[in-house]
Parts: sequence; structure tokens; C-alpha cells
Amino acid sequence: MSRRRRVEDLVEEYLERIRPADPAAMRAAEERQAALTKPAGSLGVLEELSVRVAGMTGTCPPAVPAPAVVTVFAADHGVHAQNVSPWPQEVTAAMLANFAAGGAAVNAFAKNNGVDVRVVDVGVATPVDQLDIVHANVRPGTRDLSQTEALTEDEVRAAVAVGFELAESLVRDGYRCLLTGDMGIANTTASAALIATFTGATAAVVTGRGTGIDDATLAHKTAIVEAALVRHAVPPTEPLKALQAYGGLEHAALAGYILGAAANQVPVILDGVIAGAAALVAQALHPAAVDYCVAGHRSAEPGHAVALKTLGLQPLVDLDLRLGEGTGAVLAYPILSCAVRALAEMATFEDAGISS
Amino acid sequence: MSRRRRVEDLVEEYLERIRPADPAAMRAAEERQAALTKPAGSLGVLEELSVRVAGMTGTCPPAVPAPAVVTVFAADHGVHAQNVSPWPQEVTAAMLANFAAGGAAVNAFAKNNGVDVRVVDVGVATPVDQLDIVHANVRPGTRDLSQTEALTEDEVRAAVAVGFELAESLVRDGYRCLLTGDMGIANTTASAALIATFTGATAAVVTGRGTGIDDATLAHKTAIVEAALVRHAVPPTEPLKALQAYGGLEHAALAGYILGAAANQVPVILDGVIAGAAALVAQALHPAAVDYCVAGHRSAEPGHAVALKTLGLQPLVDLDLRLGEGTGAVLAYPILSCAVRALAEMATFEDAGISS
Repeated sequence: MSRRRRVEDLVEEYLERIRPADPAAMRAAEERQAALTKPAGSLGVLEELSVRVAGMTGTCPPAVPAPAVVTVFAADHGVHAQNVSPWPQEVTAAMLANFAAGGAAVNAFAKNNGVDVRVVDVGVATPVDQLDIVHANVRPGTRDLSQTEALTEDEVRAAVAVGFELAESLVRDGYRCLLTGDMGIANTTASAALIATFTGATAAVVTGRGTGIDDATLAHKTAIVEAALVRHAVPPTEPLKALQAYGGLEHAALAGYILGAAANQVPVILDGVIAGAAALVAQALHPAAVDYCVAGHRSAEPGHAVALKTLGLQPLVDLDLRLGEGTGAVLAYPILSCAVRALAEMATFEDAGISS
Repeated sequence: MSRRRRVEDLVEEYLERIRPADPAAMRAAEERQAALTKPAGSLGVLEELSVRVAGMTGTCPPAVPAPAVVTVFAADHGVHAQNVSPWPQEVTAAMLANFAAGGAAVNAFAKNNGVDVRVVDVGVATPVDQLDIVHANVRPGTRDLSQTEALTEDEVRAAVAVGFELAESLVRDGYRCLLTGDMGIANTTASAALIATFTGATAAVVTGRGTGIDDATLAHKTAIVEAALVRHAVPPTEPLKALQAYGGLEHAALAGYILGAAANQVPVILDGVIAGAAALVAQALHPAAVDYCVAGHRSAEPGHAVALKTLGLQPLVDLDLRLGEGTGAVLAYPILSCAVRALAEMATFEDAGISS
């Protein structure tokens, strides 16, 4: 009971630390954008993005958000037993080894874009003790959401704490931009249930092909999500209960990580549908958490666009990616830093001696 | 006449050096993509992009296309006299000074993304001799396309040669990715005429607001483009005559630059509507030139989407930019290099000991 109380208090403490974006810094950034050497509005979405970062950090112009780190939260899902994915569960652990060895797509993208990579076992079913990663396994995979609650309340709170405290320690280490990543066979099933809960969309609308399942498996997976939504019937006002019902451990950790970025006034770039589902949890816990979120990309997974709409976020990259791992967030990072760098470093018309 | 002959021969020589992308390297890249540690197709557009670069360079996997350079070709336009833009013509030269001082958006983006910047005066009306840029002024701005031909045949060929030879010298200097940039008050007017010529679209469809003109100026600008298309009536099979009719000097240089990238088997990332118009010229000169083009972004300028459709290119970034300078190309560069780096550096399922 003392452990449970401690963790419960922590989540409340996290939420108390979150403030909305600073309107004065945003106004100053809008004014500065209008004075820079370019036609008004000609940097499109990047102008608004730079204004948002001014609001997050409470400064104008904000510093370029560097260094950056992508944290890949990995966990397994009990619902895998219902054959919602053609991949064996062991692939989660095998991919962790691949991340640790630098052989995955997220490693290649991160190396290219100057982003560090952290890999966290928050709930992988297969032991990965031998890997040089962050070990914070709350339990070895969730329970099967189609049969029972995926997690206990304690487990949810512990996983949220893993994400929040890692975000805090990354900011303490000097990181100024946090990116989300994820790995977990069957995690699009839990994501679909979470997105349906917070957006009101049906299972049919938000359930997708994940790694590329066939029509029959998609119909089966959709039915599993639909039945789980009926079984658990969590209202959108109960985000921790939604994590209890559906998991996953990585969604809980990602929600904590997003809250941690918000509490530390640091932008967090969301990857795809898993991060979108976790951001909906964070938004339900504290609406201002979304002020600190940047949508890295729009995934090909159908639930993602639905989640982004409810979050009110516009994706920076839209290239039919559906890999996860943080790849979409890492692709978007240079766009975010270009937006901020332009605001910070461009000459004004006055500097350049041009009358505007 | 000897100068004319020499330049005419050069363009023919350029075209003879261009080969289509290598189908064997592309097949090898497709096979490698299928073996990499990710669900098939999960990197979406980036997979196809990596296959195209294998085809351009004739190798699989291709090297990451670095270092990269964005070349900002600057020139003025006689049609500016018809009040198609609210900005004075002197802004072209003032922005060149801004580029040289590092104060423009393209400088901020390029610094952020590790791209070098070259600035070329290929036809600015205001003297810019004092600036530390590439001086290759063919003439001080085009003639007014609404009254006469914008350029002579000699001037067109000389400007094409500026772009081609600069591309060659950049590749000799070690650059492995060329990006297009442009600056020139009123250059969206010439772009609209060129795009209409090669796509068959009407002036109303391809003429846009450029830096942000009002409805009355847009109607006037559209009428200018429409009348010019009737006056000059260049068929799409006569790309050099189209450059003669409409200019601009930067469009001609950009067409040469694209041909130069193609002749040297190096990818060229196109920026917005100016580059799109120039790429249509390059395509009309040699269809395989487009094999080497990557569409950096889709500009908010309406003619750009029309141009991309005829070029058969899908833009990587779509964020309502309409600044030019090369900003969209520079934003896209990390996406291109991530695509290539993933193909080159990711582990295969066999490497990672995962049965796929």
C-alpha cells in the first residue's frame, strides 16, 4: 500500500507542475516573425511552430532545441495471444537487440539527424537483461485486454513514473528536445482501444493493419478492439483507468514522458499512432500537456489521423511511414529546429536595410 | 557568331552525357529494402526514394548523398515593369546581400541541416559586384516578356551553361547532392508562363500570389501571363525557345544545373515553383533529367503542384512554404539522406538473427 500511495502522489505532483504555454513569449515571437526578411507568412507552418516553441520555453526567440534524444519505450501485449499480429512476441526483444546494436531504422535516422537514442525496457515479455539499455521493466508484458484488465492501477502508475522520471533525467542531462519512440508487437491493438476511448471513434475507424496484416486478420483485430471497448467501457475522463484496461506499459510510460517534457517546458516530438494514443492519455490528465507536443508525422495507421485531430496537432511529415520506433519523430526533428533557428537567427528587414 | 556556336554545341554536349537511372541498381535496392529489419513497405515513400538514388548513382546501396550544397540563382525580370509584384526590383540585390551576410531563411535552414550555400548572380539588375558571391551575370535582368522576347538565344544558352558548369564544378569539389535555390522579384510570373507552356494548364490555373499580392494584382498578373502565352505561343517541344520568350535567367541556369546534376549522376533536390518550371525545361530537353530530380516540397504557389504532376514527382515536405531561396529543398535534404542511410546502414533480418 505504501508503494501504491507513493506512486499515486507522484502522478498528482507531475500534473501540478504543468503550466500552459506562455502567451507573452508567443506574442513576441509573432511580432518577430513579422519583422524577419521574408514575405509575411511565407514560412507557412514553420512560423506557427516557432511561435509554439517560444510559448513552450517561455522565451523569444527560443534557443534551437538541441541536443535531442529519441526514447524508444518497449513492451509486450497480452492480447498478442489473440493472433492480432503475424509476428511472434519474441520480435520485440530481438528488435531491442537490434536497436542496441545500431541496426534499426531509428538508429540510421537518428545518426543522420544528430539525435541520440535511448532504449527502455518498460515491459518486454522476453528477458533482455544482457542488453545495454535502460532496464525499467514493470512487468513482462500486459495481461490480455480481451480477457481482463491489462494492468493494475499500481502497474499503470509505475510505468507513468518510468516515463516521467526518464524525461526529467534527460532534461537534467541537457537535452532540450525529447522525441518519442516505441516498440512492441501488437501495440497498435492497445492504441486503437485508447484512441477510440478518447476520440469517440469506433473500432472500425481506428483499427489498422499495423505491420501489414491481411483482411481477415484486420476484421478479427477490429472485433477484438470492439469487444474490449464494450467490456471495459472506460469513459474518456478516466485516463489512468483506460491504461489499466488496455495498456500498454509503453503507452503509460510515453504518457509520463510527455508530461515530463511539459513539466520541464521542453518540446516533445510525437512519433506515430502509439505516441498519439499516449498523448491523448496525457491530454486527458492535463490539457496543457499538448501545448508541448509537436506531431512529427502522420502514420499510415488510420487511428493516428483521428488522434491528431482530437489533439489539435498538424503533422510535419506525411510520407506513408508505419514503422514506429520513433522514425517519424526523428525525421521531423530538423524541421522543428529549422523553424526555431529561422526565428532566432534570421535578419530583420531593419537589420538588412530593406524597407518592408 | 563563334560564341553562339560554342554555346549551342555545349548544350548538345550536356544532353549527350545524360543516361537514364540504372535499372539494375534499382532492382538490387528493392531487394535490399525487402531484407531490412522492418515490415515490408513500412518506410513508405522513403523506400522508393532510396531505390531512386540507387538508380541515379548506379550503386546499391548508394552512399549517403553528402556533402550537400544549395545554389541560389538570382536574377531580375523585365516584366516587373508591369506591376506584377509590390516589391521594388532592388529587393533582389538587397536579398543577395542578406544571403551573403547569412541573414536569410535559407542560411538558417542550411546551417541547421549541414548544407553549404552558394549564391550566384546570373542576371540581377542592380550591380552587386561588391558581394562575395559567384558573379556570372549574363545580362542585368530579362527584357519585359509582355512586350518582347525576354532573352536572346545566346543569352539563354549562356545562362544554361552557367548552371551546368557550376553543377559540374560543385561535383568536382566533392558535393554529392545539389539543391536548387532562387531569388528574383517577379520570378513567379515567368514561372507561370513556363509551367503553362509545358503542362498545357491555363494562366488562371498556374498564376499565383507569389510573395502575397492582392486579388486585383493577381487578376492583372494572370492577364499578363495569358497575353504572353498568346503572343509567344511556344510549343512544349521547344524548351530553349520558351526560355527565350519568358526567361528568366535563373530558370535557364537552374535548367542547366539540373542537367549538370543528371550528367554527373548526382541527385538534385528541387525547391519550389521556380525550380519546378526549370525542371520542366530540363525534362523537355532530356526526359531522363527527371530521373535525378527529387521534389523537396510542394509550394503554396498553385503552379507548383501542376508542374510536379507533369514531372511525375511527389514532394517530401508540404508545409505551406512559399518563400523560395531553396528553403523547401534544404528542409527536405535530411529526409533524402535518412532514406539513403536506412538502405545503406540498417541490419537485414539475417544480420539480426530474426526470421522474417
